[in-house]
Amino acid sequence: MNINGKHHHTIWVSEINEKLIQVFDQRYFPHKVEVFDISTTDEAAFAIKEMVVRGAPLIGVTAAYGMYLGCIEALTQSNPDEYLKQVASKLNATRPTAVNLSWAVNEMELALKNASDTDERVRVALKRAHEIKQEDIDICFNIGQYGLKLIQEISKKKNGKRVNILTHCNAGWLATIDWGTATSPIYQAQQAGIDVHVWVDETRPRNQGANLTAFELNQQGVQHTLINDNTGGHLMQHGMVDMVIVGTDRTTRNGDVANKIGTYLKALAAHDNNVPFYVGLPSSTLDFDMVDGVKNIPIETRDENEVKYIQGKVDGEIKSVLICPETTPAANYGFDVTPAKYVTGLITERGICEASEKGIQQLFPEKF
Amino acid sequence: MNINGKHHHTIWVSEINEKLIQVFDQRYFPHKVEVFDISTTDEAAFAIKEMVVRGAPLIGVTAAYGMYLGCIEALTQSNPDEYLKQVASKLNATRPTAVNLSWAVNEMELALKNASDTDERVRVALKRAHEIKQEDIDICFNIGQYGLKLIQEISKKKNGKRVNILTHCNAGWLATIDWGTATSPIYQAQQAGIDVHVWVDETRPRNQGANLTAFELNQQGVQHTLINDNTGGHLMQHGMVDMVIVGTDRTTRNGDVANKIGTYLKALAAHDNNVPFYVGLPSSTLDFDMVDGVKNIPIETRDENEVKYIQGKVDGEIKSVLICPETTPAANYGFDVTPAKYVTGLITERGICEASEKGIQQLFPEKF
Repeated sequence: MNINGKHHHTIWVSEINEKLIQVFDQRYFPHKVEVFDISTTDEAAFAIKEMVVRGAPLIGVTAAYGMYLGCIEALTQSNPDEYLKQVASKLNATRPTAVNLSWAVNEMELALKNASDTDERVRVALKRAHEIKQEDIDICFNIGQYGLKLIQEISKKKNGKRVNILTHCNAGWLATIDWGTATSPIYQAQQAGIDVHVWVDETRPRNQGANLTAFELNQQGVQHTLINDNTGGHLMQHGMVDMVIVGTDRTTRNGDVANKIGTYLKALAAHDNNVPFYVGLPSSTLDFDMVDGVKNIPIETRDENEVKYIQGKVDGEIKSVLICPETTPAANYGFDVTPAKYVTGLITERGICEASEKGIQQLFPEKF
Repeated sequence: MNINGKHHHTIWVSEINEKLIQVFDQRYFPHKVEVFDISTTDEAAFAIKEMVVRGAPLIGVTAAYGMYLGCIEALTQSNPDEYLKQVASKLNATRPTAVNLSWAVNEMELALKNASDTDERVRVALKRAHEIKQEDIDICFNIGQYGLKLIQEISKKKNGKRVNILTHCNAGWLATIDWGTATSPIYQAQQAGIDVHVWVDETRPRNQGANLTAFELNQQGVQHTLINDNTGGHLMQHGMVDMVIVGTDRTTRNGDVANKIGTYLKALAAHDNNVPFYVGLPSSTLDFDMVDGVKNIPIETRDENEVKYIQGKVDGEIKSVLICPETTPAANYGFDVTPAKYVTGLITERGICEASEKGIQQLFPEKF
């Protein structure tokens, strides 16, 4: 998608240095557009852990390129295989909730299994990382194709009147490589000429909605309105939301959806007001081994200062303001789990299914 | 309640000058504790309009003392009665939607009806303002007495283990004169030696939870934890909330509860997880003429900049940071309405009742 009118991906190999991976530094959006250099596995781990990059698919692709950098670093190690294992552990340890991370690291390990620990392995790693990146682009495009049909149906029902879609957090192209998951149907609806408008939850504590989703919709020229996380219920009560589309960091085989904290509250409000609630996801986000997400999905707890301080622009600089007494303790849970019964459907790269074991099995029979 | 270890009300007459009313300047909490002087009716109007004082009960009492200052000013006017009428209009115009404001001004006018326009009227005015203030203290105390019983029951069921209460916005003593409405049961539970802990919703956009509720609980030494508005659902799913208590700006005769935007989402989560959801309110907040709050209660929309900018402390100063692209449009709905079916009970100064016409009628038969 576009930044400042020019098409970009969120991650790429430098054109002048094949050992340098570059990403947008998402910590400073929307106030600054800056590129962050990743030339070591430590920098790859830092980028994931410190949320230079974020979003499950982008985290996965970053980890894949991190493994590629690991293969380069391994060339000068006395025990290259052992070193690469350590790199895999280091990358896996950066963020606990997203399943794409370990999936991508595992995919890389599988691809590298039979490659000799020489330049060959480096080449194999780069090729596989490129493939994982391209797969993500294709997957997001396909999610958009299926989701577009849902939006078209609503638009028809409303006789072409504006379709209002609420989204939480950023499951946009900035969370992936291109298109996004939750936003892909929206961008494709825009391109299909449908009158679409997005309610953007600011998504405290880190405000990915205000910082990223509002930014990318703005860059793409999609109509949108920023709201506080408290607002969606009121809008749904008053018929101002036609559908909800969110992303997910992990969805269990029975359709329980882990996503950014607060998603569950929007699902409850959608259910209470008969608003369809959809989740856009690549199948890599499906955890086929897990049931009962509320009980079993590990929920990341993060630094309390993300709650106590809010980052923004003031006097031309990016600063953080304290919003409570200095000694106030705060709790910061990163995600919550929406039980499958509140999810109208899952929009995957293979089609749309019910959020249930039966529904998921119909689309992904080989996993059952 | 206490500020810096000393007992205070939110409004008082200066000990050394009976013609000077003083309040805490709530625009700068929690970062600065400053007293604001009100010695003229203009200053009283300013304090209400600019939110130096806020919270319906405190606004009402401030207006009552404003009328008292009006009686003093009237002594030197050529037409004192006409002047006092103008003062009443000026005060009523500050926050025209606040029910308590016009109620208090009207109470003062009734009390002054038969008093001569001399020092006698000044004395009558001061006496009636004091009474209105004391009535509010008594009402809040009684809400606390009834609410305390609910907390005691939970504490017993948990064999004395910590009782976790979630609250949204600030229905604390800072919105009243003393005790608060939603917080009164909590303070009385603390005084009764119950182990009580409060989850404080930050309450975007104006962060009254982070700025005021966290501040006042901190000053009272009540255990509490600040959370984002997105977090309550997750906590309830995991058994970390024993009850919810919130305030209300208007409750209809059938028990629909208008309160700060986002309250409805917490009520849905409480319902989904069998967590009792209570509303603490003085009967002056009951609108006996209205049914179907979702349809009929007018919802104030406020400046979009309250969504786009957040106030806090940075570099020792109070500043506002921009959290989204400058051109992003935002919507700012101040309140939402929680349908009665999601409300476990109303805690009033006369006791606890079901949130229904039948329940309310049992406590307030004279209104039906």
